[in-house]
Amino acid sequence: MAKNYFIGIDLGGTFIKGGIVDGKGEILVQDKVPTEREKGDKGVATNISNLCKNLLKRLNISTSEVVGIGVGVPGMIDSAKGEVVYSNNLDWEHFFIAEEIEKQTSLPVKIANDANVAALGETKFGCGKDYKNTVMITLGTGVGSGIVIDGKLFEGNHSAGAEIGHSVIIAGGELCTCGRKGCLEAYVSATALIRETKRAMLNNKDSKMWEIGSIDLVTGKTAFDYKDIDESAKKVVDRYIELLGVGITNIANEYRPEAIILGGGVCAQGDNLITPLQEFVNREIFAKEKGPQVKILIATLENSAGLLGAGALWM
Amino acid sequence: MAKNYFIGIDLGGTFIKGGIVDGKGEILVQDKVPTEREKGDKGVATNISNLCKNLLKRLNISTSEVVGIGVGVPGMIDSAKGEVVYSNNLDWEHFFIAEEIEKQTSLPVKIANDANVAALGETKFGCGKDYKNTVMITLGTGVGSGIVIDGKLFEGNHSAGAEIGHSVIIAGGELCTCGRKGCLEAYVSATALIRETKRAMLNNKDSKMWEIGSIDLVTGKTAFDYKDIDESAKKVVDRYIELLGVGITNIANEYRPEAIILGGGVCAQGDNLITPLQEFVNREIFAKEKGPQVKILIATLENSAGLLGAGALWM
Repeated sequence: MAKNYFIGIDLGGTFIKGGIVDGKGEILVQDKVPTEREKGDKGVATNISNLCKNLLKRLNISTSEVVGIGVGVPGMIDSAKGEVVYSNNLDWEHFFIAEEIEKQTSLPVKIANDANVAALGETKFGCGKDYKNTVMITLGTGVGSGIVIDGKLFEGNHSAGAEIGHSVIIAGGELCTCGRKGCLEAYVSATALIRETKRAMLNNKDSKMWEIGSIDLVTGKTAFDYKDIDESAKKVVDRYIELLGVGITNIANEYRPEAIILGGGVCAQGDNLITPLQEFVNREIFAKEKGPQVKILIATLENSAGLLGAGALWM
Repeated sequence: MAKNYFIGIDLGGTFIKGGIVDGKGEILVQDKVPTEREKGDKGVATNISNLCKNLLKRLNISTSEVVGIGVGVPGMIDSAKGEVVYSNNLDWEHFFIAEEIEKQTSLPVKIANDANVAALGETKFGCGKDYKNTVMITLGTGVGSGIVIDGKLFEGNHSAGAEIGHSVIIAGGELCTCGRKGCLEAYVSATALIRETKRAMLNNKDSKMWEIGSIDLVTGKTAFDYKDIDESAKKVVDRYIELLGVGITNIANEYRPEAIILGGGVCAQGDNLITPLQEFVNREIFAKEKGPQVKILIATLENSAGLLGAGALWM
């Protein structure tokens, strides 16, 4: 029987999202269930397996029509071994999740890090679908990143690479969650943007940003909201874009991808973010216009990137 | 007839080095001739072609026994097109060198950037021969770099990537030759080491480093020579190793190679350099001992890396 379907699983700390996808990236059916971390690693694997079985039932598809299951996992994984090496979010260590789901579903399972899977999804089916060589960075609580070379994920030895967020851009700078000082993540995550916005407010009691009522209400939007009417806000935004530009130009020089894809809440700023970043990269990239251009794009798949990318591990 | 031989060419601004290599990386015959830049791009291509023909004659081999010619070129190239996009050293722009040598030798020609070719040579036949995933950086006048993934060069779109030396590690820092501020090259090249040594001497007229006689005699060795008896020299060395450590840890986190290979004159320092760098990386690498280790190695092929790596473009 022809194998035309792929199952994509986006495993999060709170919910497991899953869907059946065809080779064109159409999601034919999807659902989500609670992760139930308290059940432990095997319990969560059972929840994933049951979700897969239910999805197949709903679409009236047998396992013989499915190429395989792909799972995006938050944490450090070893894709060749199907092992979650460790995951802070899930509080797991050395769990051979692929094997466990294979046993329960009788389907082959591939896993990858969630940021990597999102990069693959956006490249195959989202804003990067015209390209085969991309780097995606996701500006969230931390900075996730994924590297696609010739249409495939590049994960490094034992899948432990592609941690671009933990590349230092200011040696000796802000302390990062990883223990290093001056990582890209420590300057361009939403967490860093909020930190800098609060600092700017505390340093300027006359800043219009205080209109939000309380410093506890600062979000990644605050500085952007006030940048046109408040000098302190403008400085925060300008510095944020400058350091994001530094990080993106580093990526451009090292990987020279066709496109760099940005994801995460800050991307709601759209052209306010992309236009100055593209100018920054064009101005700073190695060999300027003598080399090929690198396009800066905003991710378009939003919550489906993980699910589609997980399915795409089999494409 | 069996094709058992490869021709490797290391094209420099002053000399063209060439050799015939077998599949095990044995150099069966080699020679060098002046580049003669003044003859222009086609003239130099003729010199390369003639060198190839002479090497074949000396080994009494016919072209039918040769897989192909590989050429390492100083500058930005497009390997798919066989084009030197531009080369400062040679003063070339948009020269289709592969086609030209093919015409003259009747052999197929591949080209790559010289730093990339050196990385491939060291990985296939030098200190990296136990590994298939390596990054090499060469600490010379500038900082060259090459990335080997699964035994093959990773060059980026139109071969314009792998410029790790032009990744910023201190945003807004020292001006780099590329126009950016704070690139790795601006801190860890021999040029940068000499600059910092001179600064340290000028800031401390009592430094023992003045024993060398004149500031014009400073080399990349000076600070290392005096580090055990002079505080200013020690500070230069410590800072150099720290920033090289930052750059190498960035590489480790992004590519997670099995090994990072260092080349260039500074490597003569041997364990004085490697031991503190390995400690730095082990301490700073993402996920510490949870992830796979990254070994720091010193290049061993010296002047043959380019020639062997060029031949290896066909292996």
